[in-house]
Amino acid sequence: MTTTDVHPLRALLPDGRVIDDADVLEAHRRDRATFCPAGAPAVLVRPRSTEEVATALAWAHEHRVPVVPQGARSGLSGAANATDGCVLLSLEKMDRVLEIDAEEQLAVVQPGVVNGVLATAVAEHGLFYPPDPGSRSISTIGGNVATNAGGMCCVKYGVTGDFVRGLEVVLADGRILRTGRRTAKGVAGYDLTHLVVGSEGTLGVVTEVTVALRPAAAQPLTAVAFFPTVGDACRTVAGYLGEGYRPSVLEFMDSPTVAAVQRIADLGFPEGMAAMLIVQSDRGEAAPADLAAFERVARGFAASDVVVADDPAEGELLMRARRLVGDAHEKLGRALLIDDVCVPRKHLVELVDGLHRIAGEHGVEVLCAGHAGDGNMHPVVAFDESDAEEAVRAQRAFDAIMALGLELGGTITGEHGVGHLKKHWLGRELDPAALWAQREIKRALDPRGILNPERVLPEG
Amino acid sequence: MTTTDVHPLRALLPDGRVIDDADVLEAHRRDRATFCPAGAPAVLVRPRSTEEVATALAWAHEHRVPVVPQGARSGLSGAANATDGCVLLSLEKMDRVLEIDAEEQLAVVQPGVVNGVLATAVAEHGLFYPPDPGSRSISTIGGNVATNAGGMCCVKYGVTGDFVRGLEVVLADGRILRTGRRTAKGVAGYDLTHLVVGSEGTLGVVTEVTVALRPAAAQPLTAVAFFPTVGDACRTVAGYLGEGYRPSVLEFMDSPTVAAVQRIADLGFPEGMAAMLIVQSDRGEAAPADLAAFERVARGFAASDVVVADDPAEGELLMRARRLVGDAHEKLGRALLIDDVCVPRKHLVELVDGLHRIAGEHGVEVLCAGHAGDGNMHPVVAFDESDAEEAVRAQRAFDAIMALGLELGGTITGEHGVGHLKKHWLGRELDPAALWAQREIKRALDPRGILNPERVLPEG
Repeated sequence: MTTTDVHPLRALLPDGRVIDDADVLEAHRRDRATFCPAGAPAVLVRPRSTEEVATALAWAHEHRVPVVPQGARSGLSGAANATDGCVLLSLEKMDRVLEIDAEEQLAVVQPGVVNGVLATAVAEHGLFYPPDPGSRSISTIGGNVATNAGGMCCVKYGVTGDFVRGLEVVLADGRILRTGRRTAKGVAGYDLTHLVVGSEGTLGVVTEVTVALRPAAAQPLTAVAFFPTVGDACRTVAGYLGEGYRPSVLEFMDSPTVAAVQRIADLGFPEGMAAMLIVQSDRGEAAPADLAAFERVARGFAASDVVVADDPAEGELLMRARRLVGDAHEKLGRALLIDDVCVPRKHLVELVDGLHRIAGEHGVEVLCAGHAGDGNMHPVVAFDESDAEEAVRAQRAFDAIMALGLELGGTITGEHGVGHLKKHWLGRELDPAALWAQREIKRALDPRGILNPERVLPEG
Repeated sequence: MTTTDVHPLRALLPDGRVIDDADVLEAHRRDRATFCPAGAPAVLVRPRSTEEVATALAWAHEHRVPVVPQGARSGLSGAANATDGCVLLSLEKMDRVLEIDAEEQLAVVQPGVVNGVLATAVAEHGLFYPPDPGSRSISTIGGNVATNAGGMCCVKYGVTGDFVRGLEVVLADGRILRTGRRTAKGVAGYDLTHLVVGSEGTLGVVTEVTVALRPAAAQPLTAVAFFPTVGDACRTVAGYLGEGYRPSVLEFMDSPTVAAVQRIADLGFPEGMAAMLIVQSDRGEAAPADLAAFERVARGFAASDVVVADDPAEGELLMRARRLVGDAHEKLGRALLIDDVCVPRKHLVELVDGLHRIAGEHGVEVLCAGHAGDGNMHPVVAFDESDAEEAVRAQRAFDAIMALGLELGGTITGEHGVGHLKKHWLGRELDPAALWAQREIKRALDPRGILNPERVLPEG
């Protein structure tokens, strides 16, 4: 590795923007992905304006220094991990909500605005920003855009990209461009907006985001149902959606996950059940009928217990079970590999059944929760990291889950992104011409390959 | 111009695919755009499979022959007009609905399937394909994808691109790739799907489309309101949507348009009104309340007459007024330049008022109807084509409308596309870096520039 002296960059930016304190660099080396390599960054840059981002990128481009953009580093695929000698470009300090236009139902924000901060800010105007990744209390809109983040509301409302109307982007060489529009519709030229959404910092650095909002939804009502088999739960998902219902949440938890949650918070759920579904409807007066229909479908598929909350507050208690899943998995005290396969809903049964087979074959534990209404599951391989042989088996199980997802007509990643974690699997999902097209686009927009190198696209 | 002998292509494709009959070529030279140049095609190719498309493109790439993809040629921007010596590549014969998956709520179709045919086919499964361009009885899904077509339902449901999950695309050199996915979500690699959607045949030829469907909506209820000023109608649009209502249709017609419609079908509308709105709600039991709220808002903005249909059939009669707009404008017996600006809704008043000013300044007639709920208007400049001087003034008025749209924070095209008609305006809307990025992407994917050359992107 040739190292470039990054200190001249300090002269180009205001005081305090360029940080090389070893502890700070160490604290910024990684996102939340497990088992992804992280290099030694040369420096951390914290710009406060688009122009400062442009200055940093123009300099990096000139000197061919790799740049790794970062938001809250809450990502799960290693896309924000440092590479050796890189500039870590943190957008966290560009955290202003620039505009909320209640009449047009849109907001314009800097990339460092935390998702939950935006959601709260627009709620004060009677508006609703639906994309709700599990990380919403910490993750930034810029990071959400970079990964095209999903969440629980997606089953009804769609993902981050569905709400992005336009972007301000700084190209690899420091030039600034605007994509998209403020208006409800627009087809002037190629859709660069959605090319950048989900590109994980490899095509440009997003410095401003214009998002569409919706009118506030009614407070949701909630129900949970418990099933004797995973198959019954999965068939309930397909059956309920197949009748034309559009719940605002439709989540799955398998019994090991429910047990893990109950270990950290006793929710009084019944024992001996194989799976649980949580459903919400935010259709106001129509919500009770929506949940009654859910109960009917669930009981038709052998659900033994169905609990319909009497009011939104009781519903929030039920939702707590789902919100605690991440903590509960972590509290297992084992190493975790978190997967993100998404399959056609009719194949959910085969996916979840397959997880048990894979766990058995590889001698590891696999727990599963996920956005069942979208077919997007987060199986978690739990294993003992100190046992090198078990770690290898865990990695094989993780890979087998992705292979199964592809076999069932699905994708290796529904919402977490490719990053480093899955880039070798991207070539399994995409055909050679699609990989070629993606590489050509990367080369066209970042000819020196400085933006988040070695991420997303596998080496040719 | 060097002409290439295109007859060797005949040997590569099955009988009947390659047509050089002069009358057939003449009939395929143009789409429905007015005042766009059309060249002399060398040949028309009508493939019946993806492999035949690939064969034709590989040949054209090798011999550097321009290829102009065509669907139903119902486009309004000249994107499907022949260029001199080109292969016209008509996808009309690839017109099979390959799959309707009611459980997954998706369909897979060839590009030549007519929009209305798909809508009817999925309705038989209790499903709904919302994008409804005015051309839906004749236009194809491939053409809808190429232009990212909109329509009246977009105000609630979104445009074509919002329903496209994945594509099969043949690249300029004949290689075949798949973009996107069948699943509800997916973030594996760059979003090539939405890069191709709206690219008007300049980046690849779409040979298969996977679309998301929704459960059938309830039969809509309809209301119309008549206003003494254009401003009152526009403020009603903003006011009604601002209260959080999401109508499934919210259309505007100005008085010259209403008068033109009444000349071809007496609908008994009141005289002396400046503008009319048509609104629909498809929310079933909630629809009457939605329309009552519309009436309240409209009367608050001085609407004199508000008619709420008693049932869907009566509503369809009211909708007829809107559906007849295209015919009514054509029956004026004058040449027409059809615009497609889209502005933030709060600036609708300034847009429509501006049209009257522009008409006066240039001494031409401007009529206006459009998708008011999206801020997407279709002002029509009507003029005497035989008067060369008036034709020049008409073109200037057409340009002035786009300039006004941009001034109001809008776009030159909400749903019709750029094609030839507006390519010189694309450079006015996009900044230099965005234009550069678009040209680089075009060069990367079509290095010989054979796909629909001289369309969309202005010369550098």
